Amino acid sequence: MAAMKRISRLRLQQFRRALADKHVPAALVTDGPDVRYLSGFTGDDSWLLVGPRRAALLTDSRYAEQAEAECPGISVVVRRGPMLEALAGAVRRARIRRLGFDPEKVSVAVRSRLVKALRGVRLVQAGGIARRLRITKDPSEVRAICRAIQAAEEAWRGFCKAVRPGMTEQRLAAELDHRMRLAGAEGPAFPTICAVDASASMPHARPGSRRLKRGSVLLVDFGARVRGYVSDLTRCLFLGRIRPRVRAVYQAVLEAQSAAISAVGPGVGLAEVDAAARGVLEAAGFGKAFGHGTGHGIGLEIHEPPALSPQAAKGRLEPGMVVTIEPGVYLRGRFGIRIEDNVLITERGRRVLTSLEKDLEAMVV
Amino acid sequence: MAAMKRISRLRLQQFRRALADKHVPAALVTDGPDVRYLSGFTGDDSWLLVGPRRAALLTDSRYAEQAEAECPGISVVVRRGPMLEALAGAVRRARIRRLGFDPEKVSVAVRSRLVKALRGVRLVQAGGIARRLRITKDPSEVRAICRAIQAAEEAWRGFCKAVRPGMTEQRLAAELDHRMRLAGAEGPAFPTICAVDASASMPHARPGSRRLKRGSVLLVDFGARVRGYVSDLTRCLFLGRIRPRVRAVYQAVLEAQSAAISAVGPGVGLAEVDAAARGVLEAAGFGKAFGHGTGHGIGLEIHEPPALSPQAAKGRLEPGMVVTIEPGVYLRGRFGIRIEDNVLITERGRRVLTSLEKDLEAMVV
Repeated sequence: MAAMKRISRLRLQQFRRALADKHVPAALVTDGPDVRYLSGFTGDDSWLLVGPRRAALLTDSRYAEQAEAECPGISVVVRRGPMLEALAGAVRRARIRRLGFDPEKVSVAVRSRLVKALRGVRLVQAGGIARRLRITKDPSEVRAICRAIQAAEEAWRGFCKAVRPGMTEQRLAAELDHRMRLAGAEGPAFPTICAVDASASMPHARPGSRRLKRGSVLLVDFGARVRGYVSDLTRCLFLGRIRPRVRAVYQAVLEAQSAAISAVGPGVGLAEVDAAARGVLEAAGFGKAFGHGTGHGIGLEIHEPPALSPQAAKGRLEPGMVVTIEPGVYLRGRFGIRIEDNVLITERGRRVLTSLEKDLEAMVV
Repeated sequence: MAAMKRISRLRLQQFRRALADKHVPAALVTDGPDVRYLSGFTGDDSWLLVGPRRAALLTDSRYAEQAEAECPGISVVVRRGPMLEALAGAVRRARIRRLGFDPEKVSVAVRSRLVKALRGVRLVQAGGIARRLRITKDPSEVRAICRAIQAAEEAWRGFCKAVRPGMTEQRLAAELDHRMRLAGAEGPAFPTICAVDASASMPHARPGSRRLKRGSVLLVDFGARVRGYVSDLTRCLFLGRIRPRVRAVYQAVLEAQSAAISAVGPGVGLAEVDAAARGVLEAAGFGKAFGHGTGHGIGLEIHEPPALSPQAAKGRLEPGMVVTIEPGVYLRGRFGIRIEDNVLITERGRRVLTSLEKDLEAMVV
């Protein structure tokens, strides 16, 4: 708890400094993960008002006790009426005349209501400040991600032994999710994908009633959430045998992933990492079958910046970022292969945080 | 699939009629549940453009195959570049000059980008149309909610037999979630709450490492998701025995819930239902210990209108609405009791869709 108080104070300091650079003395934070990052509060439906010296969490009675326990350095306002009334009161008490808000996280309707509720206060756009701070992870965050990886990997090892022909995608997903919980996860980081054969050609397939059979390809995209932080892995399993076409695709994807991981390092362009994977797949004739980006940041959310994609024209990797590397090939109506690991960018290079087997022969169950 | 095509066509018709009432010929739908409701598409990151005659789903290659399978009556645009470019093209092709959007669901930043991308198109606020249609459920939706209730209740019955002293809140939640999956749920409808003793005094507690012991109160708030639709139940279990104070609180909450359920019917004011529960708890001296509203709508989302709260000044129940009835009493640092069922408003009255036991003596395990 003392650690969280210190971390929260440090993050609020950085947040205020970035605000001051925009000549904004105070800001309203409405986005759940941003609120959690800055305050330590893990509940929902609560806003954080960051003033020049003090910060206030505006919550309701459902979270009163929890907020006081989780946010020792922050004053907790338990509203009885509407959020906007509570905000107006807190803004008045703090004598705030100029208030920043994040245009990405405030809806057009909420802005209108803010304007009405905060007469005499100038609302100014000050977007993405917490989100930018969140892109590079501090050691406590990297530890949480590693715990989330650990839970996912422990579950995966047991899962591989439990996979049997005849199991449906839904049953497989339930099995893996349960094992992640038993391994310490708060829950899955996102709806687990278990896609068999033709389903696996849809990169974001929802588990259905398709069943595993001998010779099947099973694509599993999964991750755990621990202390709010996520992991995000993909592995493919082969039931009993591997068809030659599948083998060729797998080797190409594995090579593409390896090339992208090798490209990762501080100062490297985001598009360069994508190009490393894409180049391998294009050379192998699978360029068109790789329709998504090579990876993305992970943290309190499953999709965070940076995006590693061909469109990522500018932008470079920095120490402290944690990204997925996940090229894939999708052959419509037949099967799909994706391999995904999580990589920390360090001062000198990179550290692959995930450690599950991915050699082709090891994926036969 | 044919059924979904028919339902989607009907919903789009109703949507267009409501739009026309606002003199808006076309609208952009960006909210995931709204998109799903109108089109049948179950994926993420996709927008629906509803023109006067045709509708287009703007998605990306990850969802191309799925979108075509799920949205037979709608043209699927698989974008290669940014969403806004795809939208601008589709708007141009459909010769749309006035485009409605939902100010609750479009951020200030996205609106700015829309203005820039759609030069020559007038953007007008047309909010909450799909959300309003979604408040009353059609028979297919009620069936899905009943399936979600069934999965939750089947899981609960097994869960009650598995509860043992020594189990942690996290372990208990994992157990119940897994049983819901095995009973046919796509997953939990929301993070399951398993709160033991003092934790249960926080209405939205996160499962932690607190352990059940003899004499404990265990509050469980849980629900399943089936075909996108959710259920939402709460029950309390007592380990071995019930302390007199707990007994008194339980009876008061049960009576309050019963009063609120009896109040439910078409044409009844939303605040009246809340008052029915609140009156009982106030008379029993627990008015201040009941800090939240009596209930809310459920459907594709876990919190939908209508809100049954003291603040719900206007608004009445209508046939087809499905609401939770969930009064509670929270005694800080000691324990909490909540009892929650799901109720369909019918033409003539109500139908309680949930059927789990809640008599005090039946809750001892």
